[in-house]
Amino acid sequence: MLEAAASLDEIRALLSHLPDPDLEAGTAAALRERELTKPAGALGRLEELAQWLATWQGRHPPRLDHPRTAVFAGNHGVAARGVSAYPAAVTAQMVENFVAGGAAVNQLCRVVDADLRVYEMNLDQPTADIVDAPAMSEEECARAVAYGMMAIEPGLDVVALGEMGIGNTTAAAALSLALFGGTAEDWTGRGTGVAGDALDRKCAAVAAAVARHRDAAADPLDLLRRLGGHELAAVAGAVLAARMGRVPVLLDGFAATAAAAVLFAIDPRALDHCVVAHVSAEQAHRRLIERLGKRALFNLDMRLGEASGATLAIGILKAAVACHTGMATFSDAGVSGPA
Amino acid sequence: MLEAAASLDEIRALLSHLPDPDLEAGTAAALRERELTKPAGALGRLEELAQWLATWQGRHPPRLDHPRTAVFAGNHGVAARGVSAYPAAVTAQMVENFVAGGAAVNQLCRVVDADLRVYEMNLDQPTADIVDAPAMSEEECARAVAYGMMAIEPGLDVVALGEMGIGNTTAAAALSLALFGGTAEDWTGRGTGVAGDALDRKCAAVAAAVARHRDAAADPLDLLRRLGGHELAAVAGAVLAARMGRVPVLLDGFAATAAAAVLFAIDPRALDHCVVAHVSAEQAHRRLIERLGKRALFNLDMRLGEASGATLAIGILKAAVACHTGMATFSDAGVSGPA
Repeated sequence: MLEAAASLDEIRALLSHLPDPDLEAGTAAALRERELTKPAGALGRLEELAQWLATWQGRHPPRLDHPRTAVFAGNHGVAARGVSAYPAAVTAQMVENFVAGGAAVNQLCRVVDADLRVYEMNLDQPTADIVDAPAMSEEECARAVAYGMMAIEPGLDVVALGEMGIGNTTAAAALSLALFGGTAEDWTGRGTGVAGDALDRKCAAVAAAVARHRDAAADPLDLLRRLGGHELAAVAGAVLAARMGRVPVLLDGFAATAAAAVLFAIDPRALDHCVVAHVSAEQAHRRLIERLGKRALFNLDMRLGEASGATLAIGILKAAVACHTGMATFSDAGVSGPA
Repeated sequence: MLEAAASLDEIRALLSHLPDPDLEAGTAAALRERELTKPAGALGRLEELAQWLATWQGRHPPRLDHPRTAVFAGNHGVAARGVSAYPAAVTAQMVENFVAGGAAVNQLCRVVDADLRVYEMNLDQPTADIVDAPAMSEEECARAVAYGMMAIEPGLDVVALGEMGIGNTTAAAALSLALFGGTAEDWTGRGTGVAGDALDRKCAAVAAAVARHRDAAADPLDLLRRLGGHELAAVAGAVLAARMGRVPVLLDGFAATAAAAVLFAIDPRALDHCVVAHVSAEQAHRRLIERLGKRALFNLDMRLGEASGATLAIGILKAAVACHTGMATFSDAGVSGPA
């Protein structure tokens, strides 16, 4: 991996040229919804989703023929502190499981007919332990961001972004704490299932890492470099490239949303093309979603990562587009309007 | 329609012989979930759904190859009181729209690959106005229940139940008030979009209907006959037949859930094979779901009826079954368990 190169300054430059919403396409979607054979607003968020897709695909009608799920996998030096219920070797084992088709996200992609891409990011070279040092050098971070950008190709109608990485809810918690404040307890949760002493260790690692890198607090991209990880930087890159390429984004759980939050901290408009798919059972996700001013589509108590919730949400988007484009209008169907 | 015949006493007899859950199949599902390549419980309600399907299909693994959506349509004498934003003629017009493929539920069935059946129930013979008289005779009600039972055929893996009927949230509100108590205001909502004077009229009709039939309050099936409607009786029949035939049920919105609640009022175990698909934006639905001790799968602010929410939920069930049956186990995949 990491063939692509960019500098963090180039990434900052992109962020200063974010494409605006296509209000014409969005308005066309809103007008069509009013004509369809249902009481106004009766499809609720499905109507909002159709309008959102049109707005950020920049076309009406919106399409959902080519959805992609992208899962970025990376390893974390901080995992050596025993912050996860699983050993770090599981990251690579799960990547093999993705490739072999045995993971949850494989089955979910089959159900919603999404193209699955798994991006393995230097798994034998974990980031540095964020309690002691910056996770990545500037160059490493920029390359990881650029690598994530490569997941966005022309012709995609939506991308569901997720991650896999033993230790990465620790990184996500540290990043969230540094970006949004509060306490380490606010942002530290059970992750893969830690409890007791392990949860205490995780919380202490989050607090120590943020204290170690507090001088960087004014620069979200520098926080990503210092507290994030390869896969989190890649998610941020994919979110940014999707905005540039007019591909709407479904964000998965806590780690993926924390990665995207880096862009929000730079410019609150930077995630307007993103919908948070679900509220993870990882408790900090709800707090993070609120900080982003978002409302998740559903809450099924999922806490798996690997883009599982975001992939499930592709099915909801398909439903939204199918209703929007396939329903008859009142005049087509000869159905009376309100009396 | 209404070829089938049964008496309300025969229906009562069925209710005294409800099949029990298949705990062996459910346990087999729970045990398999523990072996799959994810932290325990990380798929949240998807795991619960796999177990619920196994329990009520009476087999492990559960299957979801043959989902059906059944929509029952009926007309209501109380509609003449101006309790809906739409004229009663819209019920038949919407049935034509279902047949022509132009309604929301048609598109949703296409997305989740469900077989759609629409049951038109004597649309030219609305029920009596419940403010003045019982909606149906004993024979009419029993026939409508029996007609609903016919929607359940061998080989179905799940059935999503919904309704269409101008005026039927008024009937559902009256039924809910009579079954569960409270005030007419508690159970009366905007339906297709009524407000102001029309909402006041609707609320008054609900209160008057329940007062008119208060002597029947001890007998839920008699309340269904007096306050319900053809399509609501059919939903109750379909729920009951599904239980007898080991077909798990997805309940749609307020009207469909109110119809099912009649069975709950007779025996609280009668809906154990049912999941409420979504929380409707019709405010009384949330209250009703709580009374049933259920937790809906999602809330997308939908308020359309016609089994739209329940059909969307079929996609979630498919995801649950795909993960349950398709994922690798830790030992298959060579993934390490917790450290």
